[in-house]
Amino acid sequence: MSSKTAISPRRDQDYPNWYQEVIKNGDLAENSEVRGCMIIKPWGYTIWENIKNELDCKFKETGHQNAYFPLFIPLKYMQKEAEHVQGFAKECAVVTHHRLVQDEQGKLIPDGKLEEPLVIRPTSETIIGETFSKWVKSYRDLPLLINQWANIVRWEMRTRLFLRTSEFLWQEGHTVHSTQAEAQQETLQMLQVYKSFAEDYLAMPVIAGKKSESEKFPGAVDTYSIEAMMQDRKALQSGTSHFLGQNFAKASNIKFLNREGAHQYAWTTSWGVSTRLIGGVVMTHGDDNGLVLPPRIAPVQLVILPIFKDSEERKKVFDYIEKINHEIKNTKFFNQEILTEIDDREIRGGEKKWQWIKKGVPLILEIGMKDIANNSVALIRRDDQDLKRVFIPRDKFLSEISGLLEDIQNKMYKRAFQYQKNNTRIIDQWNEFEKFFTPVQADKPEIHGGFARSLWCGELQCEEEIKQLNVTIRNIPLGAKPESGVCIKCGKPAKLRVIFAKAY
Amino acid sequence: MSSKTAISPRRDQDYPNWYQEVIKNGDLAENSEVRGCMIIKPWGYTIWENIKNELDCKFKETGHQNAYFPLFIPLKYMQKEAEHVQGFAKECAVVTHHRLVQDEQGKLIPDGKLEEPLVIRPTSETIIGETFSKWVKSYRDLPLLINQWANIVRWEMRTRLFLRTSEFLWQEGHTVHSTQAEAQQETLQMLQVYKSFAEDYLAMPVIAGKKSESEKFPGAVDTYSIEAMMQDRKALQSGTSHFLGQNFAKASNIKFLNREGAHQYAWTTSWGVSTRLIGGVVMTHGDDNGLVLPPRIAPVQLVILPIFKDSEERKKVFDYIEKINHEIKNTKFFNQEILTEIDDREIRGGEKKWQWIKKGVPLILEIGMKDIANNSVALIRRDDQDLKRVFIPRDKFLSEISGLLEDIQNKMYKRAFQYQKNNTRIIDQWNEFEKFFTPVQADKPEIHGGFARSLWCGELQCEEEIKQLNVTIRNIPLGAKPESGVCIKCGKPAKLRVIFAKAY
Repeated sequence: MSSKTAISPRRDQDYPNWYQEVIKNGDLAENSEVRGCMIIKPWGYTIWENIKNELDCKFKETGHQNAYFPLFIPLKYMQKEAEHVQGFAKECAVVTHHRLVQDEQGKLIPDGKLEEPLVIRPTSETIIGETFSKWVKSYRDLPLLINQWANIVRWEMRTRLFLRTSEFLWQEGHTVHSTQAEAQQETLQMLQVYKSFAEDYLAMPVIAGKKSESEKFPGAVDTYSIEAMMQDRKALQSGTSHFLGQNFAKASNIKFLNREGAHQYAWTTSWGVSTRLIGGVVMTHGDDNGLVLPPRIAPVQLVILPIFKDSEERKKVFDYIEKINHEIKNTKFFNQEILTEIDDREIRGGEKKWQWIKKGVPLILEIGMKDIANNSVALIRRDDQDLKRVFIPRDKFLSEISGLLEDIQNKMYKRAFQYQKNNTRIIDQWNEFEKFFTPVQADKPEIHGGFARSLWCGELQCEEEIKQLNVTIRNIPLGAKPESGVCIKCGKPAKLRVIFAKAY
Repeated sequence: MSSKTAISPRRDQDYPNWYQEVIKNGDLAENSEVRGCMIIKPWGYTIWENIKNELDCKFKETGHQNAYFPLFIPLKYMQKEAEHVQGFAKECAVVTHHRLVQDEQGKLIPDGKLEEPLVIRPTSETIIGETFSKWVKSYRDLPLLINQWANIVRWEMRTRLFLRTSEFLWQEGHTVHSTQAEAQQETLQMLQVYKSFAEDYLAMPVIAGKKSESEKFPGAVDTYSIEAMMQDRKALQSGTSHFLGQNFAKASNIKFLNREGAHQYAWTTSWGVSTRLIGGVVMTHGDDNGLVLPPRIAPVQLVILPIFKDSEERKKVFDYIEKINHEIKNTKFFNQEILTEIDDREIRGGEKKWQWIKKGVPLILEIGMKDIANNSVALIRRDDQDLKRVFIPRDKFLSEISGLLEDIQNKMYKRAFQYQKNNTRIIDQWNEFEKFFTPVQADKPEIHGGFARSLWCGELQCEEEIKQLNVTIRNIPLGAKPESGVCIKCGKPAKLRVIFAKAY
């Protein structure tokens, strides 16, 4: 493309900066002055609300209930699961005082030292486990299926909007079961909920699989993840589901009286997705003109821009628009009212249009006197990279709008799926593997091959050696057929074909 | 009532403990081991979700958008508004470290001291103001109408579930306007939104009015509140709306270019309600058998309890119930599907019924073989203090259910309104005033007259002297007619008739 793009730099020029610029121009979020904490602006927050509402329905359909647990975790709880505390100790924000006073210079300083410092939850297994140990008495209390929508703090040194911030918003499911099999099934069920949500709503194809031992959640027996490919071919871990075995049940003493009348430890799971998903949407679908939103999570699915010269024209255009808008409201998209906005702000038409393009709204309708005369509308599809303006008879448009949105949703998924497919390769030679992950250009370390599907012996040593290339095992895909061959690294017998990639 | 009640102690025996027991038996919430922090259980949290959803619609209808701001506030922001920091310094949780390490004994201790400590938001005027100063450039950016749903921490020494906890959930609206009049109008508009929500949804009558100078929000020019009367005749401040003038605009430098091309400070407001509202619902409507929920916020509006002896009866009863349930789903209550639950847990019928009574579900339907034979249902209305079981023909019940819920909602409001009216008195003599607020029984300090509507000179000194009785000015009701008379305390001329009460 030779013409100027709305976002500078372009993806092919500087991907990390392109990402920041898309977020800025799309009015999604911004950095605050508080280290590592972001401000989610209304357009970004509404996307989160849409994600939240849909997921919340799916959690409730699968029998989960919401509850709310304290922000603070006493140190003694953290200490109970050894791997867990080790995993999170380096990134815990700690509250040590409960008031402020002014010193002699009038400067505010902390005062009222707490007897026991409190950690701000980096995740809530320990505090929720403590509560569950009181709620669970008998097998009749099981399964206990709880979810929490909350803010989380993990102190990060290098942060990036949505992808890695010290505070973020998420949901965390926490469940308790009477058998191992049931807990494992729950873990996989929720992984599947995440996978279909990512694919059906975010139009983001993901690979569901099991994490290697070294990449597990601290304290888990098994961790599963969904991994998506971004447009720089790096992987984004977009959701995780953990089978915790009896580790946290033992740490928090979650025991129940079973049907045979004996006390036994329960089996627990936890699973979560966060505002990181919004970063995934940006990097899966965004183009050089900014954000491109899948219709099913867009805050506005169709924006209508009136074009007129004077107050007389204005009245006519608005009359025409309001009738159209009214009729759109009578059609449905996935059983819900289509979300429209008439943008009547007094700013230049070109600027206005480009604002909406950069915000990624799926359909832009421009309506002026000519359209009224022709009884038509001028339509731009955001997923069309050329942003062609197409003239459609009014009635045809109205009868097709729901199908149009569906078509956009489907094409966005297909395009992303194709991209992932095109940049995933089965690699069985170490030379080829190394070359695949070597940056194409020295000054653009981020551009490389993509996902490699290679055999791995299962040993930590090979995994660690491969990490030297900045490449990690993303996961061991579910449902892969057993293969016999040799490990890509050490040449010893291997049965697991896993996904290797650079990752966020 | 001579018969045994489900909650012990009864309201007339020990009101504060009755309150705790209703919450416990109603499965709303419990104390955590973290000082002052509560766990909101699924039944309580669903009530909060219902409150949240309805209020959120009303905020959006009045043009507000949601966003999310950091949990942490740098000390330097807190310092900018002198009254504000003074108001909150004593109850701020302070983060001073960003990791944990183990000491020689293996005990976890805070490490990684922050250069500048961070306060956990006790409210967000300062951090949001800082952001608004960047968002607002010109009069075209105004009004800026933002709301945030968030958790808040105010370190409390004496806590009570829902009423006063160190962490709580709330919403905080923050708006910026180009004129004083517009900001004042916004303040009153949101107060009105709170008043109608409390009355129409929570069935909780409130008095809307202006706070006295001494009871204002730290940093506000004017604070308005809604005040409800609990069944111990104490007042519960249930929502506040603040006109902040230019105080925070000056502190955070929120300036805009006006239509005349000059830079000027903006006018701001803030307003909030919290999970405290749930405490208000408990104390407005609860009776000696537990919680009584207004239908419009009840997580379940009608519970169906099957009664049967064996598996054959079980099948028949469930067939009958499922048909009824299906038909109920075809009727609407306030344009929404009626929320029903069929409780098929295998526990004793009596215990099961009492659990639902204590949880406050508005309608309880018991259905057994006799009801099938008579083509009828057995119905209990939770708002009926005697919990009479009434037999109604099936079809009559189905055609009336929506009206029944409406009737419950209305009667609950009327009863609470009548209670408030019966316990509010116009008092113009100091002797009478003192007597009104003197406990009826020495061992029950909480029982006293209620709300006194008395004249006040407007002087802080009188207000302070009256505080000796543990009585405060709740607010100066909006729309009161000017009166001439003398101050209840000092006898000097007074024009304001205000609400005096003991308060939570």
